[in-house]
Amino acid sequence: MKLSTRLSVMKPSAIRETGKQIAARPGCMSFAAGLPSPQLIPVEKVRKITDKILKKKGAIALQYGPTKGHEPLIEKIVKIMEEKNVTATRENIQITTGSQQAIFFSAMMFVNKGDTVITENPSYLGALAAFRPFECNFKGIDVDEDGMKLDELEAVLEKDNNVKMIYVVPNFSNPTGRTWSLERRKKLLEIAGEYDLPIVEDNPYGEIRFEGEDIPTIKALDKENRVIYLGSFSKIFCAGLRVGWICADKNLINKYEIMKQGADLQSNQLAQMQVDEFLNEYDMEEQIKEIIKVYKVKRDLMCRLIDEKFPKTVKRTDPKGGMFLWIEFPNGVDASKLLQKALELNVGFVPGGPFYPNGGHENTVRLNYSNMSQEQIVEGIGLLGELFSREF
Amino acid sequence: MKLSTRLSVMKPSAIRETGKQIAARPGCMSFAAGLPSPQLIPVEKVRKITDKILKKKGAIALQYGPTKGHEPLIEKIVKIMEEKNVTATRENIQITTGSQQAIFFSAMMFVNKGDTVITENPSYLGALAAFRPFECNFKGIDVDEDGMKLDELEAVLEKDNNVKMIYVVPNFSNPTGRTWSLERRKKLLEIAGEYDLPIVEDNPYGEIRFEGEDIPTIKALDKENRVIYLGSFSKIFCAGLRVGWICADKNLINKYEIMKQGADLQSNQLAQMQVDEFLNEYDMEEQIKEIIKVYKVKRDLMCRLIDEKFPKTVKRTDPKGGMFLWIEFPNGVDASKLLQKALELNVGFVPGGPFYPNGGHENTVRLNYSNMSQEQIVEGIGLLGELFSREF
Repeated sequence: MKLSTRLSVMKPSAIRETGKQIAARPGCMSFAAGLPSPQLIPVEKVRKITDKILKKKGAIALQYGPTKGHEPLIEKIVKIMEEKNVTATRENIQITTGSQQAIFFSAMMFVNKGDTVITENPSYLGALAAFRPFECNFKGIDVDEDGMKLDELEAVLEKDNNVKMIYVVPNFSNPTGRTWSLERRKKLLEIAGEYDLPIVEDNPYGEIRFEGEDIPTIKALDKENRVIYLGSFSKIFCAGLRVGWICADKNLINKYEIMKQGADLQSNQLAQMQVDEFLNEYDMEEQIKEIIKVYKVKRDLMCRLIDEKFPKTVKRTDPKGGMFLWIEFPNGVDASKLLQKALELNVGFVPGGPFYPNGGHENTVRLNYSNMSQEQIVEGIGLLGELFSREF
Repeated sequence: MKLSTRLSVMKPSAIRETGKQIAARPGCMSFAAGLPSPQLIPVEKVRKITDKILKKKGAIALQYGPTKGHEPLIEKIVKIMEEKNVTATRENIQITTGSQQAIFFSAMMFVNKGDTVITENPSYLGALAAFRPFECNFKGIDVDEDGMKLDELEAVLEKDNNVKMIYVVPNFSNPTGRTWSLERRKKLLEIAGEYDLPIVEDNPYGEIRFEGEDIPTIKALDKENRVIYLGSFSKIFCAGLRVGWICADKNLINKYEIMKQGADLQSNQLAQMQVDEFLNEYDMEEQIKEIIKVYKVKRDLMCRLIDEKFPKTVKRTDPKGGMFLWIEFPNGVDASKLLQKALELNVGFVPGGPFYPNGGHENTVRLNYSNMSQEQIVEGIGLLGELFSREF
């Protein structure tokens, strides 16, 4: 039986594979996966609203529903977008199974075999995995503290006529935790306009800002309907429910809906109603404030411990929000070898190499600070500090 | 902004588009969508188990989980497969968002642009929609009362070297309600073996048999790990939860898991636990017996009314299970024009043309009998009978 050629370029996610190694070690501390804190999942509130939904509208919640999504939730998402200064109607929204599915559909929308996709360098690993089945080429553009280096982007666009899409995570990026400046966002739009390219703006962490002023989303600055904005309830509500959305030009949304029909008919109906009912009954702002409070403490703790315990040759980013920070070891250090030694100490992390679409950078690591408790952060970062100090 | 070439061959689902027209008419009776009966959704039982899950394991149910699926559910699916005389372990199972996603992934697994996919003629519309983004060619093979006409299949395979996959719904097919004989199943395996082709066996209705003996699934007859079996809880439990599975060779399942990682990370975690807990706490066999009892009465009623009320020139299939029957009008009758007139009477159905991958057959209609009440079937089929009698 012959497999499609795309199988030759698809590979298991380094995060999920590391996750399996970690899961095989009971009690292993993990800074690997991008899991929200288990303490912040509003279980009791979800239990109450779920019971209410199943009592009052059970036969709707458990039956097939519209491909586009649960209408009352779509209306609430329109309001969420309006609060971000994005003009939207229900025609601009498609519900997806987490924003991961929206990332996948975006490659399906714009990318033919052999086309080039622009990403940050490094970029979200799950996005690279979502794009690979479409047999694209990647061009990762380096980033600094203000976002993508746009002169490098322009140099690439001048040479490569096959670029079809630009994918970015401008707020508290996965994996680096960095945030784009307003200037870079405006300039990216300008360049994308010049080359008539769509920008896929993935913003799952945007609400989780610890300090400083919110910077407008690229979508809010977009006057040409060029930006496909991807939102998610996974990081601010419940990841396991898998509810995300796309906000884009209505003609594109019609096409996303057709993709959704073929790919899985629709997302879980109950889950959409759970998100909707949570927004009816509770204050999402309060929920987000609580997340910010807890994650800020954890970020402060992890950054302080890294500065204290890791060798001075180790660099780290300085995230102003989100769930991740990024570590750079001296050149020549192989993070995946260090991972094996760390696992023996019952501590896990994700080597950074796989986040680079064009390879290299094996001396980097992504650390998640949202999932582990403060005690685990103290113990785990301490153990890593000792290990790294021994190793180089 | 340039769209991928695949967009030019993707089109809205005729079912879902008809569904929108029907939804726009409050009180419209619908024999269009393949919706289970709302009365048979075990809402109260689901409410109880959901409450239990959220009380005891809420932080797991609402958190990210494994891409492959919820382990206890996978173990139960292994047993379900064993009851069908399929040897399986957990390594042979991948959970999907309904079997629709498994259909989509199967094209992703085997089909390159320009390859040929074999389907029954007519075939499940949602499968055609799932395959189209992969820019394949279709070859629909005609069916009779015993399944696909395999001499026609062989004739096609002799000529076309680009066939990469055979997709079939052998039990109570969507759309015709027909069932393959044991002999045809064996012969299909033989032919697929000769040409080294995978068979995707989609079996969402197999449990819902009204009469006669169960016929082994093609997977149960498969000695070469050639069959990719697709199962679903949508028709026997709750469609809105979107839980299905793939049972296949373990090397293929590893690849399906990688696809799932990129496409949406994982299916809804709570939904998988709801299915698992239902299987723990309640008797699925009882639930299925109840479905069979109710649907059999509806099938009997709809068939009797068609025979009484429709013009004698109208042919119908004689389904022994499932949710659909298939209508053939005399040549020259256009079912989509009739649909518009039927909608004015507040009755909906799906024209059969779009179920034929190579077009034609506009004189056919799919009728669903599971969703409407007996009263609605009496009224709706009566109205259609009057309409059709007036029209030809």
